[in-house]
Amino acid sequence: MTTTRTSARRPGGRSARVQAAVYAAVGSLVSEGFRDTMTVPQVAERAGVNPTSVYRRWGAVSTLLEEVAVAALTGDEPMPDTGSIRGDLETWSGIIVADITRPERIVYLRAMVGAREGTPGQCPCWEIRDEQAAAMIARAAARGEAVPTVAQVLNHVVAPLYHHVVFGLPADEAYAHSMVADVLAMVPARVFAD
Amino acid sequence: MTTTRTSARRPGGRSARVQAAVYAAVGSLVSEGFRDTMTVPQVAERAGVNPTSVYRRWGAVSTLLEEVAVAALTGDEPMPDTGSIRGDLETWSGIIVADITRPERIVYLRAMVGAREGTPGQCPCWEIRDEQAAAMIARAAARGEAVPTVAQVLNHVVAPLYHHVVFGLPADEAYAHSMVADVLAMVPARVFAD
Repeated sequence: MTTTRTSARRPGGRSARVQAAVYAAVGSLVSEGFRDTMTVPQVAERAGVNPTSVYRRWGAVSTLLEEVAVAALTGDEPMPDTGSIRGDLETWSGIIVADITRPERIVYLRAMVGAREGTPGQCPCWEIRDEQAAAMIARAAARGEAVPTVAQVLNHVVAPLYHHVVFGLPADEAYAHSMVADVLAMVPARVFAD
Repeated sequence: MTTTRTSARRPGGRSARVQAAVYAAVGSLVSEGFRDTMTVPQVAERAGVNPTSVYRRWGAVSTLLEEVAVAALTGDEPMPDTGSIRGDLETWSGIIVADITRPERIVYLRAMVGAREGTPGQCPCWEIRDEQAAAMIARAAARGEAVPTVAQVLNHVVAPLYHHVVFGLPADEAYAHSMVADVLAMVPARVFAD
């Protein structure tokens, strides 16, 4: 932590370090169950930075949480609707991998894992992905497409992506699409007359 | 702690004792809450070994943490050889899940993730599992069985297991076996005349 004001003008230096420390602090506090009660002083203390730095940059915890913790496709953004389960899953997995490989998201996710204790049995990311996968699969099934189960999509598309990101293995759109191809290969082929 | 150079030539002796002492030191430091601040001199002092021994062998605390986390199936323990790829993968995945759901192993794995920086592009756990999967698959293919690729086994059996453990989702033998069933469902059925 520095007390000089001049250093604040170097966004690539101290500013980037403050951001990484604050993101990691939010990740660990979320994992410890403070998501709804988190305060700026608490974040600042955990991050080892001055609360003023947090207030100046983010203003409030809610802003910070939105910036760091809100997953892609959880707000008003429309879900993919390409007309096929393959197209939907490819677009969706591409959005996820682009989101979770952003440096600030990686820091947040790893801090969240690092602070986890026991087996809570649930995970916010997982539940959101469950709902999204279920919606795409239901739509495809209604169109008469052969579809994997929601659990298969979570275990074989979402889990490998998050696994790779938190363990530091490479993950990109091509990798995401290969996971989609694999999960669709699990589905017995069906032929429909139309 | 020894200062003699000759002892370094007995890997089964001093080397094994140093390893055990260092693993124990890491375990106690992790459980005491030093997981994020652990240093090599601290580990060495707790283990009663020279810091140089730790630096020489592991280089950094992060490397040490990773090694501790992949002890299962990396020693003299024989790989499963049940006569079928399904049997081998079920036994293997059962051993992995039993190992990585032990409380101390969960702590190590999460600490490892929390300490990761950037995208190193490799992970000791992953490389060891790669070799093991390749051996089982090669043996099954030589028997004429239809087999998944090594990458499929890693992405769809190993990754979901580690994902669930580090994120705090439930993982047990039944879950491991369902991952095996899924990955085998990716393989087009083949019929062999004999």
